[in-house]
Amino acid sequence: MPLNVTILGLGPLGASLGLALGTLDHKTLDVGRPTITGWDSSRRVLGDARGRLAIDRAAASLEDAVRDADVVIAAVPYEELREVFAAIAPALKPGALVTDTAATKQQVLAWAAELLPATVEFVGGHPLVSFDAGDIKQASHDALRDAIYCLIPLARTRQAALRGVDALVSAVGAKPYYIDAAEHDSYIAAAAHLPVAVAVALMELLGGSGAWRELQPIAGEGLVGITELAAADPSSSRDALLSNAPALAGWLDRMIAALADLRSALDNPEELQGILERAEAARAGWLRAEPNQRPGEAAYYGNVKEVERPNLSGLFFGRRRHGADRNKRP
Amino acid sequence: MPLNVTILGLGPLGASLGLALGTLDHKTLDVGRPTITGWDSSRRVLGDARGRLAIDRAAASLEDAVRDADVVIAAVPYEELREVFAAIAPALKPGALVTDTAATKQQVLAWAAELLPATVEFVGGHPLVSFDAGDIKQASHDALRDAIYCLIPLARTRQAALRGVDALVSAVGAKPYYIDAAEHDSYIAAAAHLPVAVAVALMELLGGSGAWRELQPIAGEGLVGITELAAADPSSSRDALLSNAPALAGWLDRMIAALADLRSALDNPEELQGILERAEAARAGWLRAEPNQRPGEAAYYGNVKEVERPNLSGLFFGRRRHGADRNKRP
Repeated sequence: MPLNVTILGLGPLGASLGLALGTLDHKTLDVGRPTITGWDSSRRVLGDARGRLAIDRAAASLEDAVRDADVVIAAVPYEELREVFAAIAPALKPGALVTDTAATKQQVLAWAAELLPATVEFVGGHPLVSFDAGDIKQASHDALRDAIYCLIPLARTRQAALRGVDALVSAVGAKPYYIDAAEHDSYIAAAAHLPVAVAVALMELLGGSGAWRELQPIAGEGLVGITELAAADPSSSRDALLSNAPALAGWLDRMIAALADLRSALDNPEELQGILERAEAARAGWLRAEPNQRPGEAAYYGNVKEVERPNLSGLFFGRRRHGADRNKRP
Repeated sequence: MPLNVTILGLGPLGASLGLALGTLDHKTLDVGRPTITGWDSSRRVLGDARGRLAIDRAAASLEDAVRDADVVIAAVPYEELREVFAAIAPALKPGALVTDTAATKQQVLAWAAELLPATVEFVGGHPLVSFDAGDIKQASHDALRDAIYCLIPLARTRQAALRGVDALVSAVGAKPYYIDAAEHDSYIAAAAHLPVAVAVALMELLGGSGAWRELQPIAGEGLVGITELAAADPSSSRDALLSNAPALAGWLDRMIAALADLRSALDNPEELQGILERAEAARAGWLRAEPNQRPGEAAYYGNVKEVERPNLSGLFFGRRRHGADRNKRP
């Protein structure tokens, strides 16, 4: 009896998950190779995913997609996630395991707690991978290999359910990273959204300046590099920044304070030297960990647990399916 | 009678100027190939420059270096420039043309006006080239080819003197760019120093954060790129930022306001979308001008004059050496 995995949303991430799970060796998971059902709001995308063998079966509706699913991976855009949760909630079978892939987690966990039935398990997920474009051609069976994969359970999530998601994430080659939802959102705001905001603010400042015409021939590779994140699709960046607005606002306040500190240090060469030395040393220390330890290497940080033996059969097909460990917290 | 050109400071820029002038075709300048004298505060650097044929003659002292010079190019670091002006002032011959290569110009012009005798001409210069390291191995005869070369005369500088510098700058393949000193400093602050300050402030903020250890595995290529300018040598960056502190402080204030605007826009999706679209469009428009028009192409901006016919013989060897056009402003 194969495990039924359903992937909702077949952009490059969802399709990569499908390709990775679909090409697993039969021995990688204790339940063998899962059967993969796919759904996408676009019939064209859904057909492409089937054509490229990212899924075994294309479902005609969300209800059809999740009815028999043991595991549901909601890989739709963050903006569509609440609606998808509401739509699948009545159709999910008891004991199903639901996870998502959105880049912010506090809101997603709140939606899951509000909308998904108590008879299903939810674990928030966020694989740290990015794709150059939104089409399925970016998908590959090894896109998740060595990627950090953040996992955040609900308070009510059973330990066994978390182990099940851990097993799937590990099976596709990613590194499970257990983290609190608020910390996740703050760290993603700092590491991903703040850099975008800074690049955009700098580019908006210079591009909107009366001096921009004369600045353009003078500006060189330094400005090209520091504004690269402002080249992203504006709508995608808007959605990303808005999805994590509270955490980002806090980091923007801190960035404004950091710039004010540096401005003050223009009157104090020793203080300025100190800032420059600390920044240089922090960056160099971070990059020295490349390429094996940043970000993929478990030894580098304590939050990554040793991957436990996959135990999906116990979760889905054994006797203790709603068993004694329900009250244990991960 | 060859033109005597003296280069003070034989780092990669000074040495590149020497190599470029020393390898000129005899017909490029109306005065033929100049004779190049070099000086550096380091005897080793001076010897290297002579050994690599960046100069024809190594001068034993600043006085010896400039005594017979028609043109003096002060390519020493900004921090040493005031002292060098003071040291050469008594030794300069009347009618000599002095220029520098520092990246900020208001202060340099003030020093020139204060320290150099009224019998010599001064034109501030700033070639927009950068070198990966400080050693002479970075020097090459074509390092200045197609580089923007900012030229800023003193109010008292004669038009003929400016034409002379223009001829030399053009001869080595650079593009003369006439600009006001305050504008120059403001534009360089915006295009070069503000990006360094922003990268450093962001890296200092994250590296000094209590979350840095957990942030490191999460942060990816976006943060690597946007903080690249924070990897520069701290002392060099300190000197660069301090040399242009007033202009940089103004841009830092504007950057803080731009970040505050973006923070406010987190409550207003349409406003945020507008910022993101303007930033994306400004950057794309700028980069579309590459590679032929950014920054080297005269057609791209109005400040670049058509290069006039080199007329160094008229300036240095003709009858009108202190002639009728002294009162003309460039």
